[in-house]
Amino acid sequence: METSQITLLKNAVHTIVDYPKAGILFRDVTGILDDAEAFHLTIQLLADKFSDKGFTKIVGTEARGFLFGAPLALKMGLGFVPVRKPGKLPRATHAQDYQLEYGTDTLEIHTDALTSDDKVLIIDDLLATGGTIEATTKLIRKLGAETTDAAFIISLPDLGGENKLADLGLEVTALLQYDGE
Amino acid sequence: METSQITLLKNAVHTIVDYPKAGILFRDVTGILDDAEAFHLTIQLLADKFSDKGFTKIVGTEARGFLFGAPLALKMGLGFVPVRKPGKLPRATHAQDYQLEYGTDTLEIHTDALTSDDKVLIIDDLLATGGTIEATTKLIRKLGAETTDAAFIISLPDLGGENKLADLGLEVTALLQYDGE
Repeated sequence: METSQITLLKNAVHTIVDYPKAGILFRDVTGILDDAEAFHLTIQLLADKFSDKGFTKIVGTEARGFLFGAPLALKMGLGFVPVRKPGKLPRATHAQDYQLEYGTDTLEIHTDALTSDDKVLIIDDLLATGGTIEATTKLIRKLGAETTDAAFIISLPDLGGENKLADLGLEVTALLQYDGE
Repeated sequence: METSQITLLKNAVHTIVDYPKAGILFRDVTGILDDAEAFHLTIQLLADKFSDKGFTKIVGTEARGFLFGAPLALKMGLGFVPVRKPGKLPRATHAQDYQLEYGTDTLEIHTDALTSDDKVLIIDDLLATGGTIEATTKLIRKLGAETTDAAFIISLPDLGGENKLADLGLEVTALLQYDGE
């Protein structure tokens, strides 16, 4: 990425101090979505990186993964598969639990959404601890599909998600990184 | 729309009997998303209808509104503004309650997401009773923006949403209609 592109995108990210709780700097991507230039640059950069790599589907996780994953699928000429919270997908599903700071949560995928012929690119807005993307990866692999790459608008490497996803055999791409700020 | 286009889209919609409860025929749009041809046709048909009408933003409501609204914003060269469930938007918000079958729920929008210079196209996957889109319309208008149109992949006219939105001064577009089936 060119420096001017990084500046354009970083200027569109809002940083909210002490949200959702004291001590957290929350990186808010809604500013990238509502700025047409930043939004289109974001999708173009991801499409440039991942086109011609043989991907057959984009998978995004509810809800912010939908905001970037579905437009990228459109741009790349692919279909989009949603991973959702429990009870939201109406047909037969596989479920996968994952750890939260306190307790666990669950994600689901339609059992017929992918096959062993699929090569999947995972998209989400922000990589922190990587728990939801770990669960998403397991769901994709339960269906026999291949997944080698996960891409994010923002990564917070200090929170360990990049290492967690590397351990799963995923290559991580992030347009923006924020370290210990 | 041509008959062949309607057939292509209807073939991609899954109908689930007795979901989420007995007596309901649930129309599932995930089949349109994961079929690249149907997904791209859907976004192209909406872009063809609404391009050159002076819209400045697309607004979509969590979560399925994100799946079609964000790609349409990309296609039309516009920014996308999410309307979300309570506590999900990190900056200052306006809130709007709406009626559910039992009880009420609330939607929120960032207070700085739109201005009186904006002309907004609302997108959602399916129009049933229209409660969430009524709330979304009120949020857009609280910010001083104009909204004249709401577009859906599917409408179920028997459930009254089209009349409710007409009473709000919205023109309703739906690519597919399912009547009393």
